Amino acid sequence: MDSTLTSDAEAGLRSEAKPLPGYEAMPATDPKSPVALFGADEPLAMDSGAALGPFQIAYQTAGTLNAARSNAVLICHALTGDQHFAHRHPVTGKAGWWETLVGPGKPIDTDRYFVVCSNVIGSCMGSTGPASVDPATAKPYGLDFPLVTIRDMVRAQAMLLDRLGIPDLFLCIGGSMGGMQVLQWASLFPERVFAAMPIATGARHSAQNIAFHEVGRRAIMADPAWADGRYFEEGTRPAKGLGVARMGAHITYLSEPALHRKFGRRLQNRAAPTFSFNADFQIESYLRHQGLSFVERFDANAYLYLTRAMDYFDLAEDHGGVLANAFRASKSRFCVISFTSDWLFPTADSRAIVHALNAVAAPVAFVEVESDKGHDAFLLDEPALFSAARGFVDAAARARGL
Amino acid sequence: MDSTLTSDAEAGLRSEAKPLPGYEAMPATDPKSPVALFGADEPLAMDSGAALGPFQIAYQTAGTLNAARSNAVLICHALTGDQHFAHRHPVTGKAGWWETLVGPGKPIDTDRYFVVCSNVIGSCMGSTGPASVDPATAKPYGLDFPLVTIRDMVRAQAMLLDRLGIPDLFLCIGGSMGGMQVLQWASLFPERVFAAMPIATGARHSAQNIAFHEVGRRAIMADPAWADGRYFEEGTRPAKGLGVARMGAHITYLSEPALHRKFGRRLQNRAAPTFSFNADFQIESYLRHQGLSFVERFDANAYLYLTRAMDYFDLAEDHGGVLANAFRASKSRFCVISFTSDWLFPTADSRAIVHALNAVAAPVAFVEVESDKGHDAFLLDEPALFSAARGFVDAAARARGL
Repeated sequence: MDSTLTSDAEAGLRSEAKPLPGYEAMPATDPKSPVALFGADEPLAMDSGAALGPFQIAYQTAGTLNAARSNAVLICHALTGDQHFAHRHPVTGKAGWWETLVGPGKPIDTDRYFVVCSNVIGSCMGSTGPASVDPATAKPYGLDFPLVTIRDMVRAQAMLLDRLGIPDLFLCIGGSMGGMQVLQWASLFPERVFAAMPIATGARHSAQNIAFHEVGRRAIMADPAWADGRYFEEGTRPAKGLGVARMGAHITYLSEPALHRKFGRRLQNRAAPTFSFNADFQIESYLRHQGLSFVERFDANAYLYLTRAMDYFDLAEDHGGVLANAFRASKSRFCVISFTSDWLFPTADSRAIVHALNAVAAPVAFVEVESDKGHDAFLLDEPALFSAARGFVDAAARARGL
Repeated sequence: MDSTLTSDAEAGLRSEAKPLPGYEAMPATDPKSPVALFGADEPLAMDSGAALGPFQIAYQTAGTLNAARSNAVLICHALTGDQHFAHRHPVTGKAGWWETLVGPGKPIDTDRYFVVCSNVIGSCMGSTGPASVDPATAKPYGLDFPLVTIRDMVRAQAMLLDRLGIPDLFLCIGGSMGGMQVLQWASLFPERVFAAMPIATGARHSAQNIAFHEVGRRAIMADPAWADGRYFEEGTRPAKGLGVARMGAHITYLSEPALHRKFGRRLQNRAAPTFSFNADFQIESYLRHQGLSFVERFDANAYLYLTRAMDYFDLAEDHGGVLANAFRASKSRFCVISFTSDWLFPTADSRAIVHALNAVAAPVAFVEVESDKGHDAFLLDEPALFSAARGFVDAAARARGL
């Protein structure tokens, strides 16, 4: 592989951007992932007009790139996801987040394909984001980090693929914010995507979704420990605000039927309510746990930036208000997936994508998976998702001669 | 009317419970409403086992009680509502919250009926709640206030009706938390409710609704200014936490189609996004305004208590797990209303009520109103709601010989 790819030990830039006191505890650096470094002479041109450089991208791979370099798969992660799609997570110790779908013999078969997943720009698992140290000030960027868009994430991924010597993708796949990146890939680099699989996503973020994100951001910013985003220097952590943000968001990832099935109104270790503000109900205890565990693995400013990136995403608006225009140059085949109980990205959002693809006569399959698991179904054990993915990927492989 | 009803000037108890510094700015006392005082010898027996006394109930009336005392209507208000159903609000200056439905010539015709609406126990618009001063300590109750249930609210209302000399209700009506009270009235006092109209409500709070409430409570409690509920003594106000709680809740009162119609992805006074965390989108600006205006009129602890009351509500659980049992002694006729786009209390919740009423052969009409306005439709200009109410109320009046 390219010699400019570097391990942690070789990362000159990385040791230069040394964490400040208090900063070590944050997940902004991830010693378990290889990192691609881009110097000040190779900046990322961002939609805001900013040129980010130097910067770095942390990533993980599985499988082997074939001699023709034609079997590469790019997995795009969701809002709070990361590059550990098929590897034990270095912070949580949990299994890779998409081991259900990706691995030897799985629908995305790592015995056949070379799979790459990079931490998005603006996040906090090793790629440059607001928790990274700004070389110009030797302090974490905080809100001085430029606003990131989905297109910026994709541009950075393209730079990583260039570095890895991957001319084009056999498959680009992702759910939720990852699905937005898939759509952006197919639109921005039509020659570089053979097959695209956007899952549980939309071509734009709805008003209701912007609203939920805004509540989460206000919760973080309301926390005095957030300190206008300068919490590293202050030695504080906006854990309460970030926890509230996560609790609220987590509800939107599930569904009413799933919550009813999993928790209903069952009480937590008690025969009767305590007539207090204790977590009487199991759902309360579960949500509190979700909030607490999230703040241990995620940076509050990164959460602000990535939610904002999703809010700004509107692929039609970028193409004269006509979504089909985004795909006029597309050479990709598509498989669009939605879940019946997903109310964050309801099936109507997927249908809008399919209609736009139909309008430009792009090859597209559309599967609405019957599931009560809500938005997060794309991360869970959903046999209908796996069989759809297997069928689509296998057919695409045959078409590509893999 | 009963001589123990008292105006503000006569309220001995009230002047005794004098606000502490900082407390005057809170809406916990409402000089515009008459108040019924209940002494320590007339305590409210609460579900928690507590006996609340002395306590007071602030209320408003419209119309005239007839000689037979048979034309009384009780309006039950929602979570953050109050008694100003047909009167200008003393804090916000806005019109009464149900003037669309109640007034001269309206479906609930104040030329024909004597309409009463009282601020629920646990709230902050003049009835005793956590912002009230505990006579035992001369300080605001804060979290020392006993947990309140929907049944406690109804018991207090019944005490008020006794005081007002109203033996039974011609009609009991309310939406959301008000609808819970209506159901509780019909169940707890089957002889005292001639007609009942629960709107946009459920016989129990769902896991998802508990979850949203819990997020709001955590947002308030995460605010250091909340000070474990002792903010009056501290001279602080948990405005940020309460604002976040309100923003999140407000989304659940609307619907995705309504948000899309009203705001969509339209920008706020700008041609292009600012690439910042400013309120670029109109929906963000609208939500921030909702949060800011709410904290000026509502007490944070009261919000904790009333959300908890809704969470605890489960009428079936109170009757051996069978909802129909709650209505076995019912003498009421019912009109149950839901709205198609209400996802907080979806039509399925209303159907469960109707099925239970069917099981005990209670007279029940059920109307699902086609509306894209979400849960808050019950407060808005919905002609189908008004015509259903008019038809039901007129028929009930004829049956009662009014």
